Amino acid sequence: MASKYSIGVDLGGTSIKFGIVSYDGKIYKKMVLPTFAEKGPAAVVKQIKKGVNALLKNDPKKVLGIGIGAPGSVKLKKGTVEYPPNFPNWGRVHLGRSLEKSLGQKVYVENDANAAAIGELIFGIGKKIGSFIMITLGTGVGGGIIFERRLFRGETGAAGEVGHVTIDINGKRCNCGSYGCVESYLGNSYMIRDAEQLLSEHKDSVIHHILNNDMELLTPKVIFDAANAGDEFSINFIKNLGSKLGYGLVSVINILDISTVILGGGVSGFGEFLFIPLEAAIKERVLKPLKTRLKVKHSKLKNEAGIKGAAALVFYRK
Amino acid sequence: MASKYSIGVDLGGTSIKFGIVSYDGKIYKKMVLPTFAEKGPAAVVKQIKKGVNALLKNDPKKVLGIGIGAPGSVKLKKGTVEYPPNFPNWGRVHLGRSLEKSLGQKVYVENDANAAAIGELIFGIGKKIGSFIMITLGTGVGGGIIFERRLFRGETGAAGEVGHVTIDINGKRCNCGSYGCVESYLGNSYMIRDAEQLLSEHKDSVIHHILNNDMELLTPKVIFDAANAGDEFSINFIKNLGSKLGYGLVSVINILDISTVILGGGVSGFGEFLFIPLEAAIKERVLKPLKTRLKVKHSKLKNEAGIKGAAALVFYRK
Repeated sequence: MASKYSIGVDLGGTSIKFGIVSYDGKIYKKMVLPTFAEKGPAAVVKQIKKGVNALLKNDPKKVLGIGIGAPGSVKLKKGTVEYPPNFPNWGRVHLGRSLEKSLGQKVYVENDANAAAIGELIFGIGKKIGSFIMITLGTGVGGGIIFERRLFRGETGAAGEVGHVTIDINGKRCNCGSYGCVESYLGNSYMIRDAEQLLSEHKDSVIHHILNNDMELLTPKVIFDAANAGDEFSINFIKNLGSKLGYGLVSVINILDISTVILGGGVSGFGEFLFIPLEAAIKERVLKPLKTRLKVKHSKLKNEAGIKGAAALVFYRK
Repeated sequence: MASKYSIGVDLGGTSIKFGIVSYDGKIYKKMVLPTFAEKGPAAVVKQIKKGVNALLKNDPKKVLGIGIGAPGSVKLKKGTVEYPPNFPNWGRVHLGRSLEKSLGQKVYVENDANAAAIGELIFGIGKKIGSFIMITLGTGVGGGIIFERRLFRGETGAAGEVGHVTIDINGKRCNCGSYGCVESYLGNSYMIRDAEQLLSEHKDSVIHHILNNDMELLTPKVIFDAANAGDEFSINFIKNLGSKLGYGLVSVINILDISTVILGGGVSGFGEFLFIPLEAAIKERVLKPLKTRLKVKHSKLKNEAGIKGAAALVFYRK
């Protein structure tokens, strides 16, 4: 089986990442191209072709197909990508069908959060655990649901929007239009804005020193480094994020009765500072019979989750 | 097909309701017996046998099987009912297997909230709509998930606990141990307690007059009657419940991507006083692509949902 390969295409707003991935989850060759999202669908499709052809050129490996993880809503049948955020003038594009014709390869398109879940199923923790909630902590908070080794897509492929689970109906305004969404606390830009505000009242935090008082340079990585250096403010800040995500997951677990949670994406790099309060928050409040079943795990795919998730679409059988 | 029948057994904490139900959803004959839950499993099993035998006696109709809707966690394979609330000394009882032997009939056991959802699928709105979230508003707030004509049970059969979705992590304590659960606002006893408290500040409400100032007599029905009589307090009280349930459902719909909600149970009798603010609350906050898909409907099974849901288990094919 290790001789089987697929190509994974991670379609982002600014860059497209490509990789040839083997059936046992190793990236054999990879590359990156700019997306040119602002030039419209035809330009983006051209970039995808360019990348795929470059990967296959001079390479004897036969691939089983091409998987694309795309933002926005995806219709499986024609591989249609609808209204992806940060892709102006995109509308509704039959990405899969159009690429199949011109590349002469099977093309599988899926929403990027769902692709991440399938990646974890095929190459990661899902090899041993067949039902889990996959959460990707990055710019946004994405989610995908795997139940009994199958992706739960819902009616339109949008299931698993863990980022827009409410934890406080009177809470912060979220960009989605609702209030108190998990993403309005855990999403990258929200988190940084909150930290900036709190730091103005915590002059003793080592973050001021690290940034030389230039708050423009604040990133989740800086907060993590400060926590690692023992900074009390940063440790408590991450702890609070962990609790909030945990309380949001209580609703998700009570609805789905799926007790394994896998966290991936950049912010999951907060590690135990995040994971310990998160697990404690879920255990404190989830329905009693589910408490003992709970497992919280760190994704195995790390920063190659995008390419591997897309490549996994080719190996995934419903 | 109308010549096919099954027996539905609605196992409650104080009484057991039995009915012979036809394939087209008509109750042909019914009866009620006390549960004797306090006497332990053997006594309860005896009551079930007694009821089923009484229904079948002197009746030429051949039934396809017996369906039982039971509280607590249910394991399908042996029809095991585990730790049902309000059944002392019950523990783990192989109800299905034990009844099959002694009655000589196929027996199907399912959790009562799931049975209500299957009832709606087979006999109600589900005849036309294959994916929906069924919510039963009564003593508690129960839920069941139907996706593409199949029950989504989760890992232990407990999926769909809409009552224990959080709307405010700093909200009211719920009997489940969490805070700000939907049930801690909408559950019968919570609702009545809240209304009593508010009524002490609303001396102008017609409820005081209806009850002759005896708050012990307050029920959801009284609040509904007062709302129907134009009582502003009661109309606003129900409106507030509708909004809270709606905000809770935003999380559920965003996770499941299932946009049809069916409400049943006694409190759904609040009708438009509840449904209009509920639908408005969901539309206000659910993710944009799901807003136009939303449908909120009133269960067709009304107060026969218990028996019909149980009977439907026999006709349901996974």
